[in-house]
Formats: sequence, C-alpha cells, structure tokens
Amino acid sequence: MTNFSDRLAQSILDRRSAVCLGVDPDLARFPEKLRAGYAARSGELGAAGAVAACFTEFASGLIDAVADLVAVVKPQAAFFEQYGAPGWEALRRVVACAHEHDLPVILDVKRGDIGSTSAAYAAACFGGAPDLAGASLPGLDADAVTVNPYLGADALSPFVERCGRGKGVFVLTRTSNPGGADLQERECAGRPVYLHVSEMVARLGAAHVGAYGYSDVGAVAGATAPTSLAAVRAALPQAFLLIPGFGAQGAGPEALAGLSSGPALGYVVNASRSINYAWLERGGDYRSAAAAAATEMRDAIGGV
Amino acid sequence: MTNFSDRLAQSILDRRSAVCLGVDPDLARFPEKLRAGYAARSGELGAAGAVAACFTEFASGLIDAVADLVAVVKPQAAFFEQYGAPGWEALRRVVACAHEHDLPVILDVKRGDIGSTSAAYAAACFGGAPDLAGASLPGLDADAVTVNPYLGADALSPFVERCGRGKGVFVLTRTSNPGGADLQERECAGRPVYLHVSEMVARLGAAHVGAYGYSDVGAVAGATAPTSLAAVRAALPQAFLLIPGFGAQGAGPEALAGLSSGPALGYVVNASRSINYAWLERGGDYRSAAAAAATEMRDAIGGV
Repeated sequence: MTNFSDRLAQSILDRRSAVCLGVDPDLARFPEKLRAGYAARSGELGAAGAVAACFTEFASGLIDAVADLVAVVKPQAAFFEQYGAPGWEALRRVVACAHEHDLPVILDVKRGDIGSTSAAYAAACFGGAPDLAGASLPGLDADAVTVNPYLGADALSPFVERCGRGKGVFVLTRTSNPGGADLQERECAGRPVYLHVSEMVARLGAAHVGAYGYSDVGAVAGATAPTSLAAVRAALPQAFLLIPGFGAQGAGPEALAGLSSGPALGYVVNASRSINYAWLERGGDYRSAAAAAATEMRDAIGGV
Repeated sequence: MTNFSDRLAQSILDRRSAVCLGVDPDLARFPEKLRAGYAARSGELGAAGAVAACFTEFASGLIDAVADLVAVVKPQAAFFEQYGAPGWEALRRVVACAHEHDLPVILDVKRGDIGSTSAAYAAACFGGAPDLAGASLPGLDADAVTVNPYLGADALSPFVERCGRGKGVFVLTRTSNPGGADLQERECAGRPVYLHVSEMVARLGAAHVGAYGYSDVGAVAGATAPTSLAAVRAALPQAFLLIPGFGAQGAGPEALAGLSSGPALGYVVNASRSINYAWLERGGDYRSAAAAAATEMRDAIGGV
C-alpha cells in the first residue's frame, strides 16, 4: 500500500490493537543480566558501542515479544543519540527489526527547522540524502516522524512532501507534559494555539488522504489533557492521532471516549515505560512482562 | 571561565567579531576536487562514510580559515544526521575542531521534548549519559544548543539545568523563515506568542547571569523580522541573541541598529551559506573565499 495512513490502519485492523509501542531504552531499568553481558564487552565494543549493542538487544527482544500485540513502534531518538554514532546505528537497527515484523515505525524526533534544514532532517529520517556517486541513501528508513510546528507551515513542508509516497507525519498539537499548557493552551483570536496548529494540520493533510479515509498528516495530542484531545479530534476528523500520556504518565482509557473516527479508530495510543519496564512491576523476564502489559493495554483500549 | 555567556562574550571581545559561523555542509556546493577525492574512497569508507569524511575535511578547512574572524561556530545537526552514524561522528569531530581553535560551539539542533526525553537530548549534546560501568560519556561536547519552546518551560528545564555549569541554551523566539509568522506572531492577550516565549526565557535565565552581565539562557531571533527582533531585545536586555537571517536569507546590518546591550554587544549574527559557499560567488579556494566573506561580514556588523 502506498499511503502510510493505509499501512497504519491495516496494521491496527490486522492486530486488532491500537497500541503504539514506545521504545525508550534506559540502562538503569534494564535487567542486570542483560547489562552485565555487555559490560563485559565494553573493551571490545567501546563504552558507547557496548551500550548501543545492549539497546539493540533489549529493543529487539521487546519488539519480538509484542509484535502481534501492537500496531506500530515508536522509538524515541533522544535515548539513542546520547550514545553518539553507535547509538544512531542502534536506532537504525531497531527500525529494521520492527520492519522485519511488518510493523510500521514512527520515529519520535520532534524535528522542525527552516525549509532547507527540514529537508535534511526528512532525508535523515526517511532517506534520500545523496552520496558522492549521486545515489540516494536510505537514512533511518522510518515510516513516519513527529514534527514540531513552532516554525510554521513552511518548516513542515519538506516532511509533508513525503506523504502520498509512503511516509507520514505527526504534528505536535497539545502535548502530554504539564508545561504543554504554557504556550499551546494560550488563547489567540478566540482559540488556543493548539487549535491553530490543528487548522494547519488539516490544511497540510487534505491532499494526502488514503483509501481508508485517513490522512498521512496526523497529530500528536496527549491523553493527559482529555478536553484538548477531544477538541483536536473535532478539528481533525480525518487525521490519525498519536496519543501519548497513557500508563506511566497517568491517563486511562476513559480519555479515549468518542475519539474513534472510522473502522481503524483513527488513533494509536502510545505506551513506553509501562511496557518497556513492566518487568520491574510484574517480575519475570522483561519480554514476557512486556507482552502481558501490552495485552492488558490492548484490551483496555479495545475498540477494534 | 565557568559561564558559557562569559566565554562567548570573551570570544567576541578577543576576536572583535560578532560573526557566528554556521556550518551547513551541502555536497552539491562543495568544490569538485574535494568531492572527487572522497568519491574515490567510497569503497573503503562506505557511501555514507565517504560523505562524512568529506564533510569533516570541508568543515575543518572552513573553521581553520575563519578561526580568528568569527566568535563562535554553529554546526547544523540536520546536515550531518542525513549520513547516519558516520555523519554523527563527523559532527562530533567538527565540534572538536572548533574547540582546538578555542571557539565555543552552539549546536543547532532545535530540540525540545517532555522532561525525561529532553534530559537525554541534553546528554547527547552536552555529555552525561552513563555507560555500563557508570561513567559519564562526553556526547557531542557542545557549549550551547538551540531549543524549541513549543512544549513549554518543563521541556526546556533539563537544558537550562546545565547553565551555570558551562553550558548555554538559545530558545527560539521569532525565527527567520517566512512561516515563522504562522504561530509566533499570533496575538495572545495583547502580545504575540514570541514575546510570551521571551518572558519564559527571561524567567529561566534570571538565575544564570555571568560576570559580563549576560545570561546563559539566550534567544534566537531572526534579522529578517527586524521589528520583532527589536521587541525581543527590549524584553530580554540580558540575553545573548543568536541572530540568523543574514546573507543568503536577505537581511543586512541595518537590522542590528540599537541591539547592543553591553561591551560584548550581547548578540552574534549567523551566516552559513554566504560564508560556506562564498567560493561560488568569489571563485578561488573555498577557504580563502570564506575568510574574505567572514571579514566583510565582521566589518559590516562592527560594533566591537
């Protein structure tokens, strides 16, 4: 299927799950045995290389364990970037691992810059940078990215231009953190900033609607601000929503009432820590604990 | 000196220059001879590795050529990220090259995310990620970063916490691109969004003022919107301003009238393409052309 939104819808329908697996590797919460194995290889791999290899094993184990339980995988780039070049390579491998399971990948990078720079970020995430022979490099080969709207529509265009050619974009509207209100909830001409952003998303996404009726230009809206989340949905009936704030951040399934906009719901709900580190609460192997947590979350969200 | 703002002020005074050298490597504008040398090494280094090595040579040559003419170096991360792990390593080397010349480095990444994720981005840019032995890794070892305020004050805090310990932050207020107006110029409660951001910057920066009287928490404000730039300065008398929009983006020295706020001006003016690729206009070696363009710009800005 050509459109990202169609691949995402199909994945939700095939797995009967609207769970988005956030991949947020944090060494301090890894099982001791996993850490010890790579600590012993720090001489061979280098300090950052050993962590990166440990991240790859952790994330691959996680994705293998929940591949039938989640619709999409969302690695958080920041955690990988901390480990430099080996971290970046680990991130590339995590994307490839999700693709082996036929899972689409939303790269959580929250980029946004002036046009020529946004085009370079799009090439980093989606591929397309030229090499010295004029061939096109694959980049991280993500299916979709998160982007920040502060720089305006022209900063988002290089990402949106990839839509309709298999790629997708999720624009931040109302984020899940408490400080999200600082700017996003400010009233301008009778509407909060995040609804002005939603209008921008609607405009950018109108030309990129797939066969399932969803646009490749979606929005990030947090479950921790349910009134705003509902307002974003009302403003964007055709957008896929990427909804953070579940689990560790505190929101529950009640925040999803009335959000469905079609056969494939039109949203995915992210959980990172509550699945990644379910073993800390539940005990046992981190993979089985993650699968149990993902199953519970899938059933709690339901709807498909 | 402990404070980033003091190191930046000292660099401006020592070099009598308020030029910020943007490093935006773009293969298509490199001298043919430089490209050909690395094209021949694509087999040995890999396609992305050869470009990354070519970037490192280009940027090192540039920095060597203008080291006495500019106050600070600002690599744009996007251009490096396009080339994956080797690109990231090239970015690290460019930071190190600027440091060899005692030039501070503003890493232009425009990051911003919820707290725990912003902390990871801060570790990527400034160092501090733990390895498997519990030691702290150096990251890219930048002196300052650009950050995006859309997620609010709590998203900026992990960066601001590094201030006073040698690091600095530049928060986007009014950016230099045309779409910058889409959200940033919207009126909320009688003031445009970018001035609400400026108030946030003033609040975050008040505790981090160095010996020269400037805060480690600065602001990005584009010269292409001179009225807004002047309003940001009025709202932030103690902030260092990072001013893009000169040269290739169209603004001239008249946009700087009245902006100086002390002996070291309190601002740096960025030029990327007009210095990086001066050879395309002026001919000759790219390094000599860059030095000539940087000298002209330094003199046009003047003031110190």
